[in-house]
Amino acid sequence: MKLATIHDGSRDGQLAVVARDLKSAHMADAIAPTLQAALDDWTFIAPQLDSLYAQLNRGEARRAFEFEPQRCMAPLPRASQWAEGAAWLHHLELLRRAQPAPSSTPSTPSSARFLDALREEPLLAQGAGDAFLGPHDDILLAHEEWGIDFGAGIAAIVDDVPMGATPDEAHGRIRLLMLVNSVSLRQLMPAELTRGFGFLQSKPATGCSPVAVTPDELGEAWRGGKVHLPLRATWNGHLAGQPDAGADMDFNFPQLIAHLCKSRRAGAGSIVGAGTVSNRDTTKGKAPPGHACIAERRALETLADGAPATPYMRFGDSIRIEMLDEAGKPVFGAIEQTVRKA
Amino acid sequence: MKLATIHDGSRDGQLAVVARDLKSAHMADAIAPTLQAALDDWTFIAPQLDSLYAQLNRGEARRAFEFEPQRCMAPLPRASQWAEGAAWLHHLELLRRAQPAPSSTPSTPSSARFLDALREEPLLAQGAGDAFLGPHDDILLAHEEWGIDFGAGIAAIVDDVPMGATPDEAHGRIRLLMLVNSVSLRQLMPAELTRGFGFLQSKPATGCSPVAVTPDELGEAWRGGKVHLPLRATWNGHLAGQPDAGADMDFNFPQLIAHLCKSRRAGAGSIVGAGTVSNRDTTKGKAPPGHACIAERRALETLADGAPATPYMRFGDSIRIEMLDEAGKPVFGAIEQTVRKA
Repeated sequence: MKLATIHDGSRDGQLAVVARDLKSAHMADAIAPTLQAALDDWTFIAPQLDSLYAQLNRGEARRAFEFEPQRCMAPLPRASQWAEGAAWLHHLELLRRAQPAPSSTPSTPSSARFLDALREEPLLAQGAGDAFLGPHDDILLAHEEWGIDFGAGIAAIVDDVPMGATPDEAHGRIRLLMLVNSVSLRQLMPAELTRGFGFLQSKPATGCSPVAVTPDELGEAWRGGKVHLPLRATWNGHLAGQPDAGADMDFNFPQLIAHLCKSRRAGAGSIVGAGTVSNRDTTKGKAPPGHACIAERRALETLADGAPATPYMRFGDSIRIEMLDEAGKPVFGAIEQTVRKA
Repeated sequence: MKLATIHDGSRDGQLAVVARDLKSAHMADAIAPTLQAALDDWTFIAPQLDSLYAQLNRGEARRAFEFEPQRCMAPLPRASQWAEGAAWLHHLELLRRAQPAPSSTPSTPSSARFLDALREEPLLAQGAGDAFLGPHDDILLAHEEWGIDFGAGIAAIVDDVPMGATPDEAHGRIRLLMLVNSVSLRQLMPAELTRGFGFLQSKPATGCSPVAVTPDELGEAWRGGKVHLPLRATWNGHLAGQPDAGADMDFNFPQLIAHLCKSRRAGAGSIVGAGTVSNRDTTKGKAPPGHACIAERRALETLADGAPATPYMRFGDSIRIEMLDEAGKPVFGAIEQTVRKA
């Protein structure tokens, strides 16, 4: 099923069930007031939501209304945990290769050694869950000079996951999937990486797709803990990339979640992102996968020409992120955000 | 006023007002069901809670009951943001000085250079807010070998803080203060620091004091954005330290919060910790401040003798953290946790 959170002036919004074709919706307040409330008691609540979803898809729901993504908040406008991985090592590898030599960045170990270590276990960072943005919310920032970059990715929303869960156990605790625009302030990142405490100022609020969907909505595209569909990122109307989210993913969602839960449990409604989707270009001249963020393109330019040519986002720039199924239908609706000066 | 969250089987518990002497309490469910609900609408809710608090302190509240810290969850059992700073640089400095030489830790810049950079702006790390522990909850962990350490500290719970807030503005958004036991798994930290994405597995769930208090409860001890009282940490019945939380604090709470909000707003109910309290020993033989965590003591042993002598916590070990006011009365009640094998 597909679920959305409709803006009603409150901080957590109201839960709605959205039809498979994203054309109509129905408030779910008679079942659960918010998505967090549904996740808090998923075994009891989900079958009721599912029944409403079936009615809605048959055109039999009593008070259906037209679904407008503009009215959506993030599916979980605030979450008690937001941890984001870097599951496509190709992304890190590209950015790393284009970095200045180690002498000028004393905190970074050599690339080869660093990447070898990353292959052994996933890399995840804790983020702030207090302010997820809706699919049409502006990206408000004070300075273009911070190096504003979009980052198209996928995130899983989990049920309670016990401490020490195996990847298999974690797999069974994934309740919903959604798209995210994980914005990075690239010019603030090197200093934060040097300080070793992870990202803080360099990771502002994250945008989310209009709906979150249960994994079964993806059919055969959800297998092996990965989403095997292209993720399209369109920057100012031009396709920036459409990498396959099922390809080149070095750690799947269950592995990321199990890594997170090695020394602590995760509470229901924790969100685990997999990072920027990134494919190796093996197309040999046919439509290349392109890039789900600007930093990768700049890294390739740096490797080719010694310096990046593509600027980061400017005030007024727009970014659209969506994923179409094999029939060409959008699964999650589209994130459509514009960068504005705060 | 003093507020607590009483365990009622739900995830967020029930809000209660606690008398100044911590002897009695009164459910606040007629005013706000949970502390998060109170924070979501603080301007409207706080005066009502304050009025109940005054009644309770006068012994006139109608359904007061005996306050039992054993029944408390964390004041905010789950929070949409948990960011923890390292505001006492003396703590970092000690740990740093006792580290092996840089050659074996390729990612760490030289101590002097690192510490100089830290004096310029605060260091904060995002953590997970989904599972704060109540004051008497066990610290459940799988392996003693992870290097289980307590960490006595103070945290501020804020109202909405706008992006770009100055320290002065941030000061006015601090709603509550509480004590925390910020547990660290010291043996898991070096590898995570090397990877540069901050702490994940090395920071399990954090324990909280029975009550959170409004800053005015501290009277003159709350000044300059700092809490000027000793924080007592007692390990297995022996005093480990009682450093003054107002001394040697290089960044105050307003500075930490303003740093957090440079590129994003913080939502109401965000919790900002200041890290392990740590004093320079300037007592010259009189009662020394001791240490609010084990790692500092091990660092001093390493500097003196080449190796640490004090082991980390073992299953069955207990830790008690509390803060007494100038009259010797506990302000926040005590955190009393025991480490158990998960």
